[in-house]
Amino acid sequence: MRISLAQINSHIGNFEGNLQKILQYIDLAREQGADLVIFPELCTCGYPPRDFLEFKDFIDQCNLELDQIRKATTGIAVLVGSPVVNPEREGKNLHNAAFFMADQKIVYQHNKTLLPTYDIFDEYRYFEPSHEFKVFEYKGFRIALTVCEDLWNLGNENPLYTVCPMDKMIDQNPDLILNISASPFAYDHAQERIDVIQANVFKYKKPLFYCNTIGAQTDIVFDGGSLVFNDDGSLLDELPYFEECLRSYDVLKVSGDRYEESGMRYEVTGASGFIAEAQPKEKYKLIHDALILGIRDYFGKLGFKSAVLGLSGGVDSALTATLAVNALGKENVTGLMMPSRFSSQGSVDDAVALANNLGISYHIIEIEPMYERFLNQLQPILADKPFNVTEENIQARIRGTLLMATCNKLGHILLNTTNKSEMSVGYGTLYGDLCGGISVLGDVYKTEIYNLVKYINRDKQIIPQNTITKPPSAELRPNQKDSDSLPPYEILDPILYQYIEKRQGPKEIITLGYDETLVKRILRMVNINEFKREQTAPVIRVSSKAFGVGRRMPIVGKYLG
Amino acid sequence: MRISLAQINSHIGNFEGNLQKILQYIDLAREQGADLVIFPELCTCGYPPRDFLEFKDFIDQCNLELDQIRKATTGIAVLVGSPVVNPEREGKNLHNAAFFMADQKIVYQHNKTLLPTYDIFDEYRYFEPSHEFKVFEYKGFRIALTVCEDLWNLGNENPLYTVCPMDKMIDQNPDLILNISASPFAYDHAQERIDVIQANVFKYKKPLFYCNTIGAQTDIVFDGGSLVFNDDGSLLDELPYFEECLRSYDVLKVSGDRYEESGMRYEVTGASGFIAEAQPKEKYKLIHDALILGIRDYFGKLGFKSAVLGLSGGVDSALTATLAVNALGKENVTGLMMPSRFSSQGSVDDAVALANNLGISYHIIEIEPMYERFLNQLQPILADKPFNVTEENIQARIRGTLLMATCNKLGHILLNTTNKSEMSVGYGTLYGDLCGGISVLGDVYKTEIYNLVKYINRDKQIIPQNTITKPPSAELRPNQKDSDSLPPYEILDPILYQYIEKRQGPKEIITLGYDETLVKRILRMVNINEFKREQTAPVIRVSSKAFGVGRRMPIVGKYLG
Repeated sequence: MRISLAQINSHIGNFEGNLQKILQYIDLAREQGADLVIFPELCTCGYPPRDFLEFKDFIDQCNLELDQIRKATTGIAVLVGSPVVNPEREGKNLHNAAFFMADQKIVYQHNKTLLPTYDIFDEYRYFEPSHEFKVFEYKGFRIALTVCEDLWNLGNENPLYTVCPMDKMIDQNPDLILNISASPFAYDHAQERIDVIQANVFKYKKPLFYCNTIGAQTDIVFDGGSLVFNDDGSLLDELPYFEECLRSYDVLKVSGDRYEESGMRYEVTGASGFIAEAQPKEKYKLIHDALILGIRDYFGKLGFKSAVLGLSGGVDSALTATLAVNALGKENVTGLMMPSRFSSQGSVDDAVALANNLGISYHIIEIEPMYERFLNQLQPILADKPFNVTEENIQARIRGTLLMATCNKLGHILLNTTNKSEMSVGYGTLYGDLCGGISVLGDVYKTEIYNLVKYINRDKQIIPQNTITKPPSAELRPNQKDSDSLPPYEILDPILYQYIEKRQGPKEIITLGYDETLVKRILRMVNINEFKREQTAPVIRVSSKAFGVGRRMPIVGKYLG
Repeated sequence: MRISLAQINSHIGNFEGNLQKILQYIDLAREQGADLVIFPELCTCGYPPRDFLEFKDFIDQCNLELDQIRKATTGIAVLVGSPVVNPEREGKNLHNAAFFMADQKIVYQHNKTLLPTYDIFDEYRYFEPSHEFKVFEYKGFRIALTVCEDLWNLGNENPLYTVCPMDKMIDQNPDLILNISASPFAYDHAQERIDVIQANVFKYKKPLFYCNTIGAQTDIVFDGGSLVFNDDGSLLDELPYFEECLRSYDVLKVSGDRYEESGMRYEVTGASGFIAEAQPKEKYKLIHDALILGIRDYFGKLGFKSAVLGLSGGVDSALTATLAVNALGKENVTGLMMPSRFSSQGSVDDAVALANNLGISYHIIEIEPMYERFLNQLQPILADKPFNVTEENIQARIRGTLLMATCNKLGHILLNTTNKSEMSVGYGTLYGDLCGGISVLGDVYKTEIYNLVKYINRDKQIIPQNTITKPPSAELRPNQKDSDSLPPYEILDPILYQYIEKRQGPKEIITLGYDETLVKRILRMVNINEFKREQTAPVIRVSSKAFGVGRRMPIVGKYLG
């Protein structure tokens, strides 16, 4: 049997677009002589559809699309994911289903059993888990069908579920395990994914085809990297990250009787003779590529082409601009330099040097005229009170207003340039530098920013040296440095990492050797700034724990606050 | 047996504060001669604790508090809710537990079975459902313990769960059903809650004590309204809404043998002789009271006292100011009037009249000086392009900056004044009039605003007549009216209600008799403005479907967009 994996980029709710793409990939698979082509989880509507699932009309649209796909299965079998109504009276209204269709018929429908409900996932919000586990037969192969998490209750010390679907199916002597997934990117997730899927092959000793989605849906990036395993657990192929791809494989039964489990062996080969290496897993290349896809899909799926951003001469905005150019093209990126009375000439020079290196257009707009008028008009309130964060924030908000005016007049989207260290401790002005449609670096710590810049500059100096070497500063008061308000990033970032990614409490972090006062101060800063993060742009997720939908914290909570 | 219901206002993560309050209410119950005092669900840590639950340290703190409560149970039994570690290797790490403690011992621990995971609820994100259903005995009474949703799988046409815990427990012949809850307010929820709880009494024919939490946790308001039912299903008492309260009742076995289910009868009476009427359920009084508690707890739990808001002379800001005065006191509310070249004199006059009626301080700050400078500095970008939303937004963002500067300098929190109709269709400026720490009216449609104003003005004219009668306008361009951009609110609001609260699709709404073009235009406006709602303040929830955590929509989705 020849099997194609089609890792495609669906667009949430774009039924016509998704249908056309699926039909096109069915044709491609047919051209490669496939007997079966496998698409990702919920690919009819895109993943995650969130509360659109609560609309009957939305499910109707999924069904209509599924029906069109079914009609295209002449001479080829197609496996797609789509939400479907739960026919039972009790339980959630929907199932997260995988439809195996051939000859214009639905051969088998498998409903997902293990419903991820953690981090960015909310599946039990919508779906009833299935308790039915059945292997079905197609072209002489007995197939165990699974959807994403169904294979993830293995190889963990602390399994999240009390059921393991493959344990229920293995007694029915499947020849093949198929899995359709929407497994998101994090810079350390690809190897974990391989390990978990491989644990299934080691345990059940069957060839396994795993098709993952790619594409960014606002904040969540899916990286693809679909997998093919031989029955001995060896990884035959890992598809590319961050791009759509179709590849085909032949699977043969080579010995034994298929009803005699111990004697059965299989051979899987690349249909065009190729056997790919596993994909490279270098952290900063992965983050770089994920952010580019994140930007590109945010603009593309919203129907926008061009971006604007503030260029401060600092490293965060320089990196954001560079990524935007890589994602959208230099002709689609505009920089605004907005110096104040507190800006050094170096800042504008560094920003101009960057713009020239990137070949993007830019404007220099002094904020002093507005700033001076704000101070004047606010005199009844500011009175003679000393300069503080108020005046700093006014500057940042003037810049936000200038950037948004540019968006409004020219049809751009504003890119937010705040990094994860700043987001964590609230070092940023709400409605000021925290403005933007999408946060490009909100899941990248400052120390990681420098490594990304190194990666960007690996062949030639795109981001100016002075931008990299000067001490970080908001330049909102005379001679201000980040280090006036924050511990050095080399100390701050690892503490944040322990608290945010690792969910360690103060005691555990102090035990790691960090100063108690400092740890408590930092954790408090994180917690009392929840209100800012509540109102900032969606953050492109690249780590295992990003701010946003995957991290849900109370605002009025008192814990460590 | 004398039973007290203690509906208290916990503060998320404020372990010391919650402990002191619980101990104080135990003493109060003791003074009333109670054998048992019942507190709400997860009252040790406050509900909803969200991802704080993922921190071992947070659970440790809950356990320490629980232990202190246990030590206070000499001569009185106490029922409290607290999260607890699931001892099993498989499944989620926690249970949502109810602890029945007496004589310094844990008599019984019941773990919640039905875990709400819809709208604002995320319980399966954290908790493993229990599959153990046991009735235990205390002072000669056999008790069936339940936590909130455990009683909610009855009386619905389409039950959300495939299990009904009381069905499992009734065979063990309980004498009493106890329930601890965190059931949130919506203006139409109290009667629904009574109906569902009562359906349990009708079915199982046992007296039922239901203790609900009160208090606002950022966006979610809990209204209390705890319930006592006699075994014939009659409602004996409904505790007040929106306030902490302790009341006691006596329950007696009056006939039959308690092991002979059919023969057993009970009598429940108010311990102090009182039997309260059910609480009044007038929609606008409820919304009014909920919003006041929402504002008060938002400020109180964050440790703030005073608010600022923009007073445009319009009805939304007038209503918000009035609610703020009722919640915080007139000395803690400041208004800013910020007229532009497009403002009518009437607007400032109306705002001043309101401020005088309320007795709050105010400042008038002209925005023209900043506006003129913005236009001038933006000349390279605005060039000679016609006046459009860009220039409108600049005005709104100047106002946002002035309001935030006032907050920063004087330690206020900015109240957002946007209503639900505007939030729905994106009729507002991000980082402008959409600024604010908390959205007071973001769950109140414009047509409902007028009814709330009527309620406010029921005894005397607080909100000026001219504010009520003039046509709504943003006054961001000459002679602008809301009706230039939007259909009349009397048509807009019912369509929004069908789409948002009722989750009806375009076909169903059109079937109700609304114009097809208009319906499609409005639904599209709602969907393409998801990016604005993503970045606005938490909205105090008063309806069954508010914007925010209870409504999760994709931003890059194409559906109806």
